[in-house]
Amino acid sequence: MIDQRLLPNEEVYNLYQSHEQVADAIRSMVIRGAPAIGVAAAMGIALGVRNLRNLSGTELDSRFEAICQLLAQTRPTAVNLFWAINRMRRVYDANKHHPLPEIKELLQQEAIQVYQEDITVNRRIGDHGQALLPNQATVLTHCNAGALATAGFGTALGVIRAAVNAGKSIRVLADETRPFLQGARLTAWELMKDNIPVALITDSMAGHVMKTEEVQAVIVGADRVAANGDVANKIGTYTVAVLAKAHRIPFYVAAPMSTIDFNTATGADIPIEQRSEQEVLELNGKRIAPDCVTARNPAFDVTPAEYVSAIITENGVARPPYAASLRALAKSCVS
Amino acid sequence: MIDQRLLPNEEVYNLYQSHEQVADAIRSMVIRGAPAIGVAAAMGIALGVRNLRNLSGTELDSRFEAICQLLAQTRPTAVNLFWAINRMRRVYDANKHHPLPEIKELLQQEAIQVYQEDITVNRRIGDHGQALLPNQATVLTHCNAGALATAGFGTALGVIRAAVNAGKSIRVLADETRPFLQGARLTAWELMKDNIPVALITDSMAGHVMKTEEVQAVIVGADRVAANGDVANKIGTYTVAVLAKAHRIPFYVAAPMSTIDFNTATGADIPIEQRSEQEVLELNGKRIAPDCVTARNPAFDVTPAEYVSAIITENGVARPPYAASLRALAKSCVS
Repeated sequence: MIDQRLLPNEEVYNLYQSHEQVADAIRSMVIRGAPAIGVAAAMGIALGVRNLRNLSGTELDSRFEAICQLLAQTRPTAVNLFWAINRMRRVYDANKHHPLPEIKELLQQEAIQVYQEDITVNRRIGDHGQALLPNQATVLTHCNAGALATAGFGTALGVIRAAVNAGKSIRVLADETRPFLQGARLTAWELMKDNIPVALITDSMAGHVMKTEEVQAVIVGADRVAANGDVANKIGTYTVAVLAKAHRIPFYVAAPMSTIDFNTATGADIPIEQRSEQEVLELNGKRIAPDCVTARNPAFDVTPAEYVSAIITENGVARPPYAASLRALAKSCVS
Repeated sequence: MIDQRLLPNEEVYNLYQSHEQVADAIRSMVIRGAPAIGVAAAMGIALGVRNLRNLSGTELDSRFEAICQLLAQTRPTAVNLFWAINRMRRVYDANKHHPLPEIKELLQQEAIQVYQEDITVNRRIGDHGQALLPNQATVLTHCNAGALATAGFGTALGVIRAAVNAGKSIRVLADETRPFLQGARLTAWELMKDNIPVALITDSMAGHVMKTEEVQAVIVGADRVAANGDVANKIGTYTVAVLAKAHRIPFYVAAPMSTIDFNTATGADIPIEQRSEQEVLELNGKRIAPDCVTARNPAFDVTPAEYVSAIITENGVARPPYAASLRALAKSCVS
């Protein structure tokens, strides 16, 4: 995995030998982004089982379950993590009586499948979503929902890439996204590599920019979409959504169907991860606030469905009311 | 001056020997905050004239004007700067035919007067404003409108201090205020010194906090208030105002009458300073964004009067419509 904590200053790739190391990487945000941590969890499970020797029956079952549990406990909000773990569980359950080497091979294949499907899914999200962006558009995005947050291409940035590939001229305004600076460090880096014009703004500038410039759309990713269309995404997304509504700018969410959690009725049921205060109180390892001051650090917030103009998935574009439109997309074939 | 760029990690006091040095200190934000830079400009003019030798008549006039011009060109948005310079000009004009030592003395007295009045004014703002804050309130503030931004006590933080002095229990949520981090570095530092409970949030968290917690009021300072009540203040203030309105939280502006610019009809006429991109692209001297990426750095934004619940001055509290209420306060005696 590329260590996303060090970008853009250093491009360091880490090689992991155990599922414990993969779990640490997810927890410490070496890798982040809902689809990417789903893929990482699938790979972590395949890796954990590959390291097992001479086990079968209930002993193997309990070791497999422990591996899944460890990965499930890394981060609570992004549902893709649990979705990917469940995919691995299904393969294990269907094949648990086979010889261990065969189980290892099947789990590895499934993990690679999860990885490859995600890229295909992102391309489809891009195709559906790019139609929503006009030519000559300025698009504001928050956090990083790009290639780094997925197996490749990206969800929100995938829509922007697809629009550019379709010949449209798109300028991007990237919120820097404190405290982890995914916008400054990751989104700006990705877009510059693709020669897509990008200007960085602090999160606080979003309102001023919407008031004083033409912004045609906001597009973000998601960590979990509830059945009613409420969207959990990186902290600050709700602030941007309120601003977009006040300025009558469409607010789009781009996410794979695996991010939509039909078992979660509304955003109130989505667990919001609280991360360490240190991420707010320090920057580049240097303290930016007085000693002993406290800080809040919710890693995500929930944007109510009423603020969301459309949810762009690989199966098509859902419009309000989402309870019906998301269900319809779930039933439709990927075409 | 205490070097506000180094707080809270280092408390360094700089001594300046020339008005050029004072101008540099204002420009580079060693000192910031509308009332504080007004006081600094007055002191800078007194200092510049004190350094003159054997001048009189038109020669003295032109040197005095050059000193005023240099200080006026440091920062464009905060009107207190120009207000303070004009006060010094009036003293000079009324006494320009007196011997130079006497002019020096009078200018020094006027600068000290500007300084002392500001503290008195802040106390009065606090007295008027604290009545607006309920007991047991959580108050959100943006940037630093405290003792550091004024000659002492503060405007927005002065209101909070006065409420605490009146026996009320107040908790403060401080926006960190990127890019310069006035909230994290200065507001948190001031409030902790006064034992007022404060928790730091990133700017992007304001919406989430307003949605999920009880926030009874937002209170901020101002760099310039137009005659119609539009408020220029630190970048991000407008974002907070939109959020406050969406959550039906009162949004208060605390500022001395010297911040109200009756010569500026509306916010559209207020010049917004654009500062160096480096302030956004670097943190603690370390690059946080890819090389060659561009950034925006408007230092202020304008909050339209319709978002402002009240403007708290030393002469009383103005309510909408502000064109009338601000005029009325300007005519009332300081009581």
